[in-house]
Amino acid sequence: MAHKPSIPKGTRDFTPELMAKRSYIFDTIREIFELFGYAPIETPAMENLSTLMGKYGEEGDQLLFKVLNSGDFLSSTNRDELSRIESRELAPQICEKGLRYDLTVPFARYVVQHRHEITFPFKRYQIQPVWRADRPQKGRYREFYQCDADVVGSNGLLNELELLQMANQVFKALGIRITIHVNNRKIISGIAEACREKEKTALMAAAMDKVDKIGLEQVKKELQDKEVSYKAIDIVVQILENKGDSSHLASLNEFFARSDSFSATGQKGVEELEYVTAMAEQMNIANIQCDLSLARGLDYYTGTIFELSCDDFSSSLGGGGRYDDLTSIFGLRNISGVGISFGAERIYDVMEELNLFPQAHFAPVKVLFVNFGHQEQMYCYSLLTQLRANKIPAEIYPEPAKLKKQMNYANQKAIPYVALVGEQEMQQQFITLKDMESGEQYPISIDDLISKVVQ
Amino acid sequence: MAHKPSIPKGTRDFTPELMAKRSYIFDTIREIFELFGYAPIETPAMENLSTLMGKYGEEGDQLLFKVLNSGDFLSSTNRDELSRIESRELAPQICEKGLRYDLTVPFARYVVQHRHEITFPFKRYQIQPVWRADRPQKGRYREFYQCDADVVGSNGLLNELELLQMANQVFKALGIRITIHVNNRKIISGIAEACREKEKTALMAAAMDKVDKIGLEQVKKELQDKEVSYKAIDIVVQILENKGDSSHLASLNEFFARSDSFSATGQKGVEELEYVTAMAEQMNIANIQCDLSLARGLDYYTGTIFELSCDDFSSSLGGGGRYDDLTSIFGLRNISGVGISFGAERIYDVMEELNLFPQAHFAPVKVLFVNFGHQEQMYCYSLLTQLRANKIPAEIYPEPAKLKKQMNYANQKAIPYVALVGEQEMQQQFITLKDMESGEQYPISIDDLISKVVQ
Repeated sequence: MAHKPSIPKGTRDFTPELMAKRSYIFDTIREIFELFGYAPIETPAMENLSTLMGKYGEEGDQLLFKVLNSGDFLSSTNRDELSRIESRELAPQICEKGLRYDLTVPFARYVVQHRHEITFPFKRYQIQPVWRADRPQKGRYREFYQCDADVVGSNGLLNELELLQMANQVFKALGIRITIHVNNRKIISGIAEACREKEKTALMAAAMDKVDKIGLEQVKKELQDKEVSYKAIDIVVQILENKGDSSHLASLNEFFARSDSFSATGQKGVEELEYVTAMAEQMNIANIQCDLSLARGLDYYTGTIFELSCDDFSSSLGGGGRYDDLTSIFGLRNISGVGISFGAERIYDVMEELNLFPQAHFAPVKVLFVNFGHQEQMYCYSLLTQLRANKIPAEIYPEPAKLKKQMNYANQKAIPYVALVGEQEMQQQFITLKDMESGEQYPISIDDLISKVVQ
Repeated sequence: MAHKPSIPKGTRDFTPELMAKRSYIFDTIREIFELFGYAPIETPAMENLSTLMGKYGEEGDQLLFKVLNSGDFLSSTNRDELSRIESRELAPQICEKGLRYDLTVPFARYVVQHRHEITFPFKRYQIQPVWRADRPQKGRYREFYQCDADVVGSNGLLNELELLQMANQVFKALGIRITIHVNNRKIISGIAEACREKEKTALMAAAMDKVDKIGLEQVKKELQDKEVSYKAIDIVVQILENKGDSSHLASLNEFFARSDSFSATGQKGVEELEYVTAMAEQMNIANIQCDLSLARGLDYYTGTIFELSCDDFSSSLGGGGRYDDLTSIFGLRNISGVGISFGAERIYDVMEELNLFPQAHFAPVKVLFVNFGHQEQMYCYSLLTQLRANKIPAEIYPEPAKLKKQMNYANQKAIPYVALVGEQEMQQQFITLKDMESGEQYPISIDDLISKVVQ
C-alpha cells in the first residue's frame, strides 16, 4: 500500500522555519489591528454555496471548491438524467457547501446573521486561509491566507483614513516601503452617470482594472464591445493614458458640474477623494498618491478605493475600499462598510527577497541537555524543569545516543547552548556548558545558566 | 435575492468574545509546547483522498468531507454507467481531495514527504481545524480544532514522560484538575499473542474501548462475534470488571511468563508500563493512574497509551500514545512516534462551566475618544496616535454621533476610559477623562493618561 505521498497541487506544507516567518508577519499585523481597536472573528472554512455563489462574478463561481454532500449524495438527483447532464448542472445538485473564497463575503454574511448581538460601528479583523481553484503558478496558490480588517456601520471618512494609517504602520513595522494609491469609485460611477449609462459602472471599472494586464487598446476594445458610449470611453482612456494623474481632478469636477454632463455622484466622488488625500497629509500618512486610473476589480465597491504597492518590486501587497451595499445581498440594507486586505504570501515573498526577517526571532530553544543514560537523564530532567519554570525553552535529547548525533541535533535546530552533565558534574553539582557559536566550553551553575539565557 | 443567511450545520462562527477565550487556550498550549522544544508546522486543509482513505476505519472513510474536482469533473466518468452507479462508487471518480480528518495522518504524510529535510528526533506541534461529517450534537461539531504534539524518530520512554508532564503543565496553567490514565497496547497485544491470536489485537482494543458506551456484556458479545478465544475474553473481561486496577499487573506478568501463554510482547508491555508510572512519580507528574482497561480506539497505537480525564466532569480532554508504524503506510519504515492531542472544544466547555477564563484578559481597547466633529476629531487623532505609539489599544468613534450612542459603544465594548475633548479642552490642552466603572470624570494630561493606562 506504500506510495509516494504528496499534497494537492497549489497547496503547501509549512515547516517550522516557514511557520516562524509567517507568524512574524501575522503577529505584526494582528498587534496593529488590535492597537486600532479591531477585534478578531473567525468563520467556518465551509459556507453554504448559496452564500458564495454569484458574489465573485462568473469566473469566481467556477473557482469555488465545492464539497460533496455526505452520505448518499445521488439520492436527490434524477438518475435517468445523469448520463446527459453537464458537470456544471450536476454540481449544485450534489454539493451544498463550498470552501471560503475570500473573507469579505463570509464577513457580510456574519454581520447579517449576528446583527442583533453586534454593537455598530463593528470593527473586526480576520486572518484565515481561503481557497480558489485557480491555475497554480509561482506565487499563486490554491490555499492562501488573507488578513482583513473592516469596519461596518459607519459612513465617516475617518474610517478610510484609519485603515490607511494602519497599513502604513504595518509596513513600517515589517520594513517594507509602500505607496498607497487612492481613488473613488463614485468618480467612475459619475462618468457613467454623466454619460447617462450609470448601469455600466461595474463593467467600466472591471475593464479599467485590467489595463496593466491587457494594455490600453484592449481596454478600449472591451468598452466598445460592451457598448459603452464614446464620450465615456474618451474620458476613461484619457485618465488611463495619464496614468491616473490627479491634475484631472479639477477638470472632472467641472465636467460633473456642467448641465449636459451633471453628476452629483461624480461631484461627491471628487470631494471625498480630495478630503481623504488632504487629511491623509495632515495625519502624516506618507506616500499617499491620488490615482484616478485605480479601479479595483470587484463589483461591490462604491466609494474610496485603494491599493498598496511595494516600492521595491512592482507588486501589490494589499488593497481595499468602501462598499455601501454588501450586506444587502443577505437582506440587511443601509449598512456601509470599508475594509482593507493584506496579501500574506506577497508580503512573505517581498520580505524574503529583501531579507527583512529578523534572524534572532527564529531559534526558540535555548539549551539542549545531552543524554548520557538513564541516571544522567533523570538528574538533568530536574535542571531542565527549572529552566522551563523560568520560561526558557529547553530540551533534553530524548534517549542516550552518540554524542556526535546529539551535537548535530543541536546544530540543526540552531540551539545556542548545549549542557553536558556526566558523573563528575552530578557529584559536584555543576553543568559543563558548550557555547555552540564560539565553541567555548566552561563550568556553570544552574542559577547562572538561568540568568545567562533568560530573556 | 435576499435570504436569511446561515452556515452549514455543525459549524460555528467565532465572535470576538469566543475568539478571546479560545486564543487564551491556544496561547497557553502553544507557549508550553514551545517551552518543551516542540516546533509548529501546518499542513493544507485539503489532502489527497489517497492519503486519507483507509486510515480511519470504514466509518472514518464515510465521515470524510470530499471535495469535488474542479472543472468538468464528469469527463473522467463513464457516462453510460451513471444512471446505475452508487454514490459510494461515484465519489472517488469525481473527487480526488478531502478535508483533513485529524492531524496525525497528515503529520505522518508530512514526515515521509519531508524526511530528507527533517532532523530526527522531530518534535512538532500543530494547532489546526479538522473536519468530520459526523452527526452534529451538543459539544460535537463538524469543524473543530485539534492541538497535537508528537515526536517521531525516538524510542525513548522519556518522550512519553515529557508529553505527560506537558499535559500536566497545560492543565495546571488553565486551572483544570485532571487525571492521566496510562496503559500499554503491548499488554493487549500480549494477551492476544498468549492466546495465539495476535492478529486480533486491534479488534480487541476497539471492543475494550467501547465499554463505557455499550457496557461489559456488549463488549463480551462483540468479542465472541469476532471469534476471539474464550481464554482471551476471560482476561479482558476480568480487567474491565476491575476497572483496570493495576493490581492485575503482577499476575499478567506471570501469565506472560508461563510457557503455555508466553508473550515477549506482553512482558515488554508490563515492563514499559511499570517504568512509565514509576518515573512519572519521580518526575512529580501528579495524578497518574495505571489503567489496564484503557484501550484507545485507533488502530495505530503500539505502546504506551494515555487519556486525560477531567476530575470535575466525566469528560476526556485529550489523549495519545505511541505508534511504531504510522509512517510505514507512506513507505517509511522503522520510525517510531508518540503523540498527545488536546481537544480544544471540551477544554473550552469545561473552562466555561467552571468559570476559569480570567476576565481581565478580554477588554483590549483601553480608551475611546468621543467624536464631537471634524475639528475635534483631527485634534484627538494626534492624541490617539500617541497612545498607540505606547502600545495602548485605543480608538476614536469614527464619526460625530450623539454622545449617548458613543458612550453606549464604549459600554458594549467594555472600554474602561472615555476621553472627552471639546473646545475648552483643545484650548487649554487637557483631556476630560471618564472612568467608566466608577463614573468619575476629571481633567488629565495626555502624558498622565498614558502612564495611567500603559501596561
